[in-house]
Amino acid sequence: MIHYSEEDIEELDKVYRINLINSCSGYKSANLIGTKSKSGISNVAVFSSIVHLGSSPPLLGFFLRPTEIFPRNTYTNIKETQTYTINSIYKKIIDDAHHTSAKYDKNISEFSVTNLKEEYINNIYPPFVEDSPIKIEMKFLEEIKIKQNKCKLIVGKIVSLHIDKKLLEKDGFLSLNKGEIPTIGGCDGYYIPKDYVRKEYQKPNKK
Amino acid sequence: MIHYSEEDIEELDKVYRINLINSCSGYKSANLIGTKSKSGISNVAVFSSIVHLGSSPPLLGFFLRPTEIFPRNTYTNIKETQTYTINSIYKKIIDDAHHTSAKYDKNISEFSVTNLKEEYINNIYPPFVEDSPIKIEMKFLEEIKIKQNKCKLIVGKIVSLHIDKKLLEKDGFLSLNKGEIPTIGGCDGYYIPKDYVRKEYQKPNKK
Repeated sequence: MIHYSEEDIEELDKVYRINLINSCSGYKSANLIGTKSKSGISNVAVFSSIVHLGSSPPLLGFFLRPTEIFPRNTYTNIKETQTYTINSIYKKIIDDAHHTSAKYDKNISEFSVTNLKEEYINNIYPPFVEDSPIKIEMKFLEEIKIKQNKCKLIVGKIVSLHIDKKLLEKDGFLSLNKGEIPTIGGCDGYYIPKDYVRKEYQKPNKK
Repeated sequence: MIHYSEEDIEELDKVYRINLINSCSGYKSANLIGTKSKSGISNVAVFSSIVHLGSSPPLLGFFLRPTEIFPRNTYTNIKETQTYTINSIYKKIIDDAHHTSAKYDKNISEFSVTNLKEEYINNIYPPFVEDSPIKIEMKFLEEIKIKQNKCKLIVGKIVSLHIDKKLLEKDGFLSLNKGEIPTIGGCDGYYIPKDYVRKEYQKPNKK
């Protein structure tokens, strides 16, 4: 085992520390957030921080670095329009999805510099990502600042769900592997899990 | 594609909705949180909600359902002692790790009803999980309530890190697959990713 104390971690090279600390909590979700500004410029950006917050009401969250220091079009568009989409990444688009992390000017849509295709469903304002196996329409509810590092947790409610039916099992469970959805480790590692076992709901053992 | 509107989701059978909403955000991390009460009773519990919050300072968070309605020993012990450990699950202990989700009385240590072994490192008060490839000592910093559903985000700082050296790459990235660490889909699906590709830091394309 390799041990790092609090001081060791502080003294690590910056990139080394980012890689290590981003890896140590385990696997992360891999999604693209789609938004559109009031003036009509669409935006799509990769996020590995989307998390489940509750199923009734159905809430998802994601984290943003301090928006005063690191402005994000995703954040500005959500605040302007109160709506966004979450789209699962799938194997064929990993390169393009990851490339959306590059800092493009707010007047440039990432759909115009990648092979990602925007898709509009019904009259929903922000774009979805074509062929994504799980597409979620979200309504912005709340932003919460984390005092310690000024990051923000963005809380939203699921308004509609659009799911490739081959993922859907009889009890509502989604087989993410059937959509070739990756999981992210660290800042830039993409793994595609192949299979799974389910462990069911647990009750205490009887003596 | 299968479409669910807001009303469709509300009207789903409860277990179906829990499975669906817990699956739709993608893969989650798989960890055991170790704590010990002031009176000396150890506790270990599976969490799929541990997330990276920042690398400088090194912060991790996790979510709890409203503790007034769903009391958790993990929460009580953290508030009492201000300290806890995060231990990555690995292949051999998945059954026991998942079983810690059963609701045992606060006087029963999950270490006593599973084959999970507690390990004490230096003079750190809460237990680690023996043979876990990534062990993290945490200091409690802050709890944040999410207004929408009264869930709590527990924010902590990494105090020390203990890592199986076969996971550690030259630039600080951890190859989670080399530890046979699972990722969780939905409430009870465990996937063990086998390999990955790294995509590097992205800059805008030149015209």
